[in-house]
Amino acid sequence: MYNLLKGKKGIIFGALDANSIAWKVAETAHENGAEFVLTNAPIAMRMGTINELAEKTGSQIIPADATSMEDLENLVEKSMEILGGKIDFVLHSIGMSLNVRKGKHYTENNYDFTHKGFDISALSFHRVMQVLYKKEAMSEWGSIVALTYMAAQRVFPDYNDMADNKAYLESIARSFGYFFGRDHKVRVNTISQSPTATTAGNGVKGFKGFINYAEKMSPLGNASAQDCADYTITLFSDLTKKVTLQNLFHDGGFSNMGVSTEIMAAFEDAEE
Amino acid sequence: MYNLLKGKKGIIFGALDANSIAWKVAETAHENGAEFVLTNAPIAMRMGTINELAEKTGSQIIPADATSMEDLENLVEKSMEILGGKIDFVLHSIGMSLNVRKGKHYTENNYDFTHKGFDISALSFHRVMQVLYKKEAMSEWGSIVALTYMAAQRVFPDYNDMADNKAYLESIARSFGYFFGRDHKVRVNTISQSPTATTAGNGVKGFKGFINYAEKMSPLGNASAQDCADYTITLFSDLTKKVTLQNLFHDGGFSNMGVSTEIMAAFEDAEE
Amino acid sequence: MYNLLKGKKGIIFGALDANSIAWKVAETAHENGAEFVLTNAPIAMRMGTINELAEKTGSQIIPADATSMEDLENLVEKSMEILGGKIDFVLHSIGMSLNVRKGKHYTENNYDFTHKGFDISALSFHRVMQVLYKKEAMSEWGSIVALTYMAAQRVFPDYNDMADNKAYLESIARSFGYFFGRDHKVRVNTISQSPTATTAGNGVKGFKGFINYAEKMSPLGNASAQDCADYTITLFSDLTKKVTLQNLFHDGGFSNMGVSTEIMAAFEDAEE
Amino acid sequence: MYNLLKGKKGIIFGALDANSIAWKVAETAHENGAEFVLTNAPIAMRMGTINELAEKTGSQIIPADATSMEDLENLVEKSMEILGGKIDFVLHSIGMSLNVRKGKHYTENNYDFTHKGFDISALSFHRVMQVLYKKEAMSEWGSIVALTYMAAQRVFPDYNDMADNKAYLESIARSFGYFFGRDHKVRVNTISQSPTATTAGNGVKGFKGFINYAEKMSPLGNASAQDCADYTITLFSDLTKKVTLQNLFHDGGFSNMGVSTEIMAAFEDAEE
Repeated sequence: MYNLLKGKKGIIFGALDANSIAWKVAETAHENGAEFVLTNAPIAMRMGTINELAEKTGSQIIPADATSMEDLENLVEKSMEILGGKIDFVLHSIGMSLNVRKGKHYTENNYDFTHKGFDISALSFHRVMQVLYKKEAMSEWGSIVALTYMAAQRVFPDYNDMADNKAYLESIARSFGYFFGRDHKVRVNTISQSPTATTAGNGVKGFKGFINYAEKMSPLGNASAQDCADYTITLFSDLTKKVTLQNLFHDGGFSNMGVSTEIMAAFEDAEE
Repeated sequence: MYNLLKGKKGIIFGALDANSIAWKVAETAHENGAEFVLTNAPIAMRMGTINELAEKTGSQIIPADATSMEDLENLVEKSMEILGGKIDFVLHSIGMSLNVRKGKHYTENNYDFTHKGFDISALSFHRVMQVLYKKEAMSEWGSIVALTYMAAQRVFPDYNDMADNKAYLESIARSFGYFFGRDHKVRVNTISQSPTATTAGNGVKGFKGFINYAEKMSPLGNASAQDCADYTITLFSDLTKKVTLQNLFHDGGFSNMGVSTEIMAAFEDAEE
Repeated sequence: MYNLLKGKKGIIFGALDANSIAWKVAETAHENGAEFVLTNAPIAMRMGTINELAEKTGSQIIPADATSMEDLENLVEKSMEILGGKIDFVLHSIGMSLNVRKGKHYTENNYDFTHKGFDISALSFHRVMQVLYKKEAMSEWGSIVALTYMAAQRVFPDYNDMADNKAYLESIARSFGYFFGRDHKVRVNTISQSPTATTAGNGVKGFKGFINYAEKMSPLGNASAQDCADYTITLFSDLTKKVTLQNLFHDGGFSNMGVSTEIMAAFEDAEE
Repeated sequence: MYNLLKGKKGIIFGALDANSIAWKVAETAHENGAEFVLTNAPIAMRMGTINELAEKTGSQIIPADATSMEDLENLVEKSMEILGGKIDFVLHSIGMSLNVRKGKHYTENNYDFTHKGFDISALSFHRVMQVLYKKEAMSEWGSIVALTYMAAQRVFPDYNDMADNKAYLESIARSFGYFFGRDHKVRVNTISQSPTATTAGNGVKGFKGFINYAEKMSPLGNASAQDCADYTITLFSDLTKKVTLQNLFHDGGFSNMGVSTEIMAAFEDAEE
């Protein structure tokens, strides 16, 4: 490893289990010399195995519901105490659609579910940044990254209201990123990752078939959770200081494909 | 006029007064042979002069709060009764940010305000389409248009959470537009309009200076409310049947400008 | 028909035979009250049936090689004489890749072929506009449209260097459109059309399979040549005066699709 | 430094003098453990100081005209000999517009100049990749980067035909990147860099005023040549293996700005 994050301090949201992208980011940040606090929603912590990760990386865990300002304020304050200073990097890897969970079709969504999923998946990113901004908790040239998905730009029929939530999340990155950059020299970006077989992802209907489709559409194949962790580390490092307000596709090329030879071949077979 | 909408039936949301884009759309649709129902929130109706427009265009008014499913169901049912059949076109021109109204800075937004503004400005578009879809109220090759603004893609510091709301709205147009197209041959698009001196727009801080800036950045100058109405009519007509899921910039070219000679000149003057 | 182009004068490039989009544009413009001159390369005129179209629409034909400034100057001058005044609309529907014709794979392109195809398919658009601009041949609020394809943004493996040519063409629309807008109030846009079974299109390898694929990916199906003509007419009309520098997707929604239910179904069948 | 490129072998085009981005990339790659060959056009080598750089980084220089297949074949063969194996990374930093040099306005471009500038600035990227692809000269998971500018997407009036050349260059990155990825696991991306005060950049009319404008529009300010070198190193490293076909904005946030508070302030001053 490269010690790319030597001496850097961070907060990592959303590590559930060893399949999580956030888990891989934590491991890779640790290998690169970073110290950080792990956080997740209390309920997610009960379902997952985050303690293992904390032990492995020498990190402390501070539970926080990302829709609670009180929890987030506590998280940021405690993190600065534990880490002994301002925060250099933050990973937001949070998303959940109640409409998906409850099996609602997009055309029949329940708006209470929509509001709740929106708060968790999208608005939580604004909340996190508002707390960091007000407390002046970020170091100059710090880096904030949120994970997103290309359904924010293009239609994936089973992605339901997570598509719209991700569009809002990406907009927050630009809107808040402007003020965070102008006022505190902090950069804010989103990574638009390949479909990834996380525990959460596997809950989406038809997800395995879709991963297979994306694999064949992408000239370099899908990006794995570990690939994403590697990429995220570059965005936390001092080598990308002037990258901000961007939505960065990390997907083996999928996002700029119209059609691949493999998909055309499979499609033509099916047509016969 | 061209009778572009002869025999077409529609619902037009959001005409407040003669400065409203929706007002101009109603007038222009009427001149082009359309019949339609006008609707707005009860509170907006008290503040504006929609009765004049109804009289002028021979339309009926059905008040509806666009965040109430009951109101929307009533609206769609009554509209079909009044117009004597299915709906050919719908204009969604609804937006309001409580954070803007209350003078909150984006970095200090109040999340109750955010949720409320999100419901009015963004989710209302999903609600309207859900009601239309479930009731099979749209004609084949019908057209649904919502008005939006480029702050959904790029930072305009005073636009606050309306930027994020518009990003969500544009995502709904794609997400719902897919199902509406596939299942009922209905197209759904958004028009991303120049800053326009409507009664609502004038409430935004520094709006007049910004309109002036946009005017000088755009090779053809800003698009007016009447220009927008003309363009909207083409999207309701049978000449644009295969345009769907698009966000269409209607802005005198602003959206694809990096910088104009006029802006550079003004900027250089200011620098001296 | 709507008389949308009553009294308008135009030049239409690229009508080869009744399958051509330009042919349909000419017919539809004629039905909407326009007068125009038809033009094509001398060699294309020998292969096609443009005389029929001229007769049907009461138009004159002026042959012009779109890579020859002399031919283009003659075309513009003669057109103004014939039509009795300045030009209101121009359609550029010109494209040819020698690398495709000669069966070269993209990774083995011959650069003499590339230059030649680039001159015909892309630079010709600059040439046409340079002549119109210098001669002040366009009316105020005139409209120039070129046809393009989404391979300019995304990879379609068999599209070869036409993808790159279309990217250049779309850039010319913005670059020249700025000056044409600022100086003469003329708008310049490109229409990015569905794959269309024109005589030219059918020459591309695997084109029929691809049309079928695009049909199933697009919620409204592919846009036909006639659909494209209808849409083009709106862009020539006075209803779209403030639309400029845009690349407008006219494709039944394809451009904003990640995957459709139909494609996933076909793909999953093929996988078994 | 991080040894991010330890053991990697590369070819770097376009280092003229210490202001060049390619120069900074060479220095930074060297500090990160890479070995590489430097190349530039014979004429550029006479004007610049590339020998200094070669000495400083322990590199050899192989002159090559990037529009000559013979020169490029020689370059690639010799580079593999010198470096003792396949190539892991390539930087394409080449661009020149004869129309700009000769002071032609975009609306009056000379097409011989356009063809020549197109060959140097855009097609050279295809040529370089064709040679690398045919000779199977790239290692698996190798990385090819070309420098570009946002004029490919948006209008900057003085950028002339370089805007169109960059649009074509970015399209080549996608088109060739697909085949290079699918067949050899090589990634191809472009970096869209802030305006940078290189010796070449300073030749563009009004460039200093424009740099100042971009500085004030960008929340993090303009990215310097050294910033760009740092970012480029991440794209050559093993941490970004699944990033391909992308155009990556490296510009302090400029690309996603509509307007900044600083620009509005300066503009309003000028208005008074």
